[in-house]
Amino acid sequence: MKNIPVILLGCGGVGRHLLQHIVSCRSLHAKLGVRLRVVGVSDSKSLLLASDVFTRELDDTFLNEVSRVKLGGSSLKTLSSFGLVVVDCSASSETMGVLNQAVDLGCCIVLANKKPLTAAMDDYDKLVAHPRRIRYESTVGAGLPVIASLNRILSSGDPIRCIVACLSGTLGYVMSEVEGGKPFSQVVKDAKSLGYTEPDPRDDLSGMDVARKALILSRLLGRRVNLDSLKIESLYPEEMGPNMMSLEDFLSSGLLLLDNDIQERVQKAALDGKVLRYVCVIEGSRTEVGLRELPKDSPLGRLRGSNNILAIYSRCYNEQPLVIEGAGAGNDTTAAGVLADILDIQDLFA
Amino acid sequence: MKNIPVILLGCGGVGRHLLQHIVSCRSLHAKLGVRLRVVGVSDSKSLLLASDVFTRELDDTFLNEVSRVKLGGSSLKTLSSFGLVVVDCSASSETMGVLNQAVDLGCCIVLANKKPLTAAMDDYDKLVAHPRRIRYESTVGAGLPVIASLNRILSSGDPIRCIVACLSGTLGYVMSEVEGGKPFSQVVKDAKSLGYTEPDPRDDLSGMDVARKALILSRLLGRRVNLDSLKIESLYPEEMGPNMMSLEDFLSSGLLLLDNDIQERVQKAALDGKVLRYVCVIEGSRTEVGLRELPKDSPLGRLRGSNNILAIYSRCYNEQPLVIEGAGAGNDTTAAGVLADILDIQDLFA
Repeated sequence: MKNIPVILLGCGGVGRHLLQHIVSCRSLHAKLGVRLRVVGVSDSKSLLLASDVFTRELDDTFLNEVSRVKLGGSSLKTLSSFGLVVVDCSASSETMGVLNQAVDLGCCIVLANKKPLTAAMDDYDKLVAHPRRIRYESTVGAGLPVIASLNRILSSGDPIRCIVACLSGTLGYVMSEVEGGKPFSQVVKDAKSLGYTEPDPRDDLSGMDVARKALILSRLLGRRVNLDSLKIESLYPEEMGPNMMSLEDFLSSGLLLLDNDIQERVQKAALDGKVLRYVCVIEGSRTEVGLRELPKDSPLGRLRGSNNILAIYSRCYNEQPLVIEGAGAGNDTTAAGVLADILDIQDLFA
Repeated sequence: MKNIPVILLGCGGVGRHLLQHIVSCRSLHAKLGVRLRVVGVSDSKSLLLASDVFTRELDDTFLNEVSRVKLGGSSLKTLSSFGLVVVDCSASSETMGVLNQAVDLGCCIVLANKKPLTAAMDDYDKLVAHPRRIRYESTVGAGLPVIASLNRILSSGDPIRCIVACLSGTLGYVMSEVEGGKPFSQVVKDAKSLGYTEPDPRDDLSGMDVARKALILSRLLGRRVNLDSLKIESLYPEEMGPNMMSLEDFLSSGLLLLDNDIQERVQKAALDGKVLRYVCVIEGSRTEVGLRELPKDSPLGRLRGSNNILAIYSRCYNEQPLVIEGAGAGNDTTAAGVLADILDIQDLFA
């Protein structure tokens, strides 16, 4: 017997009749050596799936019920929904279409991918239209409980005044190493050979990765901002950008030209007992990423190596911030954050 | 018209008939100038409440439905449940009975009260029998996202190797002040007059409050331990306990006798570049609270004032721990944690 799994998108007019046909043709199909195994049906609001699409199916009683409900003009939602979680662990901006469809189908969404959340405001609004059905902890600080903690503070009505954070392990490593006097160019090359940077280190040095994280946090706080309205400080000038200079030239000569400026800024900060950190600052309507001078003995000033750190100031955490610190990158940690997100939405499932 | 709100616990035999009587007597009661407003009904598994027990009621159609369901031997659960969250913000061990009943009724539970979670193992097991229906963030570190973060790590399967934490703002203040050379007795009296301690500071110095928090975390990690099996270091000897010495005597003379010992320990630690902290340590089967020597520049060693801090070591947070730090006491912050807990279980409600 050939076993053909079918997912039916749309079960109004044609779809509803198709279901009826499938059920009434069971014995005919059996004679033909074929069995249509309906594993899922959707209308515009819901997707109902078999508990295991590989081994189970929606039985005929249930399919008849679907026909009846749709004939009456009701939504599939009135039937118990099994739901579905769509998990985006890509780094692509091309998943937006699929995610939009998933939202339309009433699916839950878990993202490690920052791109969909940093797209245009309209796309963002649609993605988070059902805030209880979306989680994206691993987009900021990998598995660190950053978004979860901010959501707790927001839901308790404690107004968040300011967030200051170091959200790039790469830039954290670079800025704490240059503090000891090493040339910027050398530190960047070391970081690259240690595997701390992207293949082209300019992807880190541009600040765009931090900016995306800043935008995600800023939008979480309710700011209606876009990536291009953020103030972003790049650690290399435009004329050394990927479109103007090859990676080889950047590493062999471009980088060296940046050493003096960084060294001067590090020394100037040190004169005031401060250190340079590449930070994200969200305060009032302002969302900025770039180098800042910070007191050596502040939580962010003390940061060493590639850890991430986030300081949240609110009514409850007023003079002393709530601080979350730890490894903010790595596939293992990021995946752990995604898994915790999926478990966190379990109550939406039967 | 007298309006009498009624909650009916138990709607099997007698209760079911009572409901029928109430409905059928409406006109009779109206003539008597009385209206029974049924705002809630329960059986052994569920409690169904009106959406607003002060202004609404379960209407007669619904009450008839309850009778019908119970006559058929079904559970009230088959009717849509409104659910209920029982919030315990007391500091009493006497609420256990109510909480047990609430669990039986399928209610959700949110606790700021540590006592029910630190009772005997059997009571604890019953309380957390439905882990998705209970939250108790504010029992440890007030509003700090301690339990929420641990739950995320646990649900991602990242094995927690060790927790080291300072969970008493009072003892944090005391231990960072004696570090500067002030006598222990003076610091404790200062803390008392600043309102940092309980009315009897021995309630803090005994370590029992920290021990309760340690037990809550230890049980969350799956250890089957009781309060009396924990190793708890008290900062005063048994003969100065509340049963043996009055508060006045303790403050005026007892405390002074403790100065030398603490001072010696502080100095001994300082010789090794360390500081004394009153910590909770959970590692392997070991759950301990007491004074420990810690490196000055470790996250816990750097702690100043009354902040709480928690360091979690796991596979993902291996050499560098995940650190959460911030205000760990205060009514405002604790209440914010409770509110965030309630919002966190919203998906269990229709």
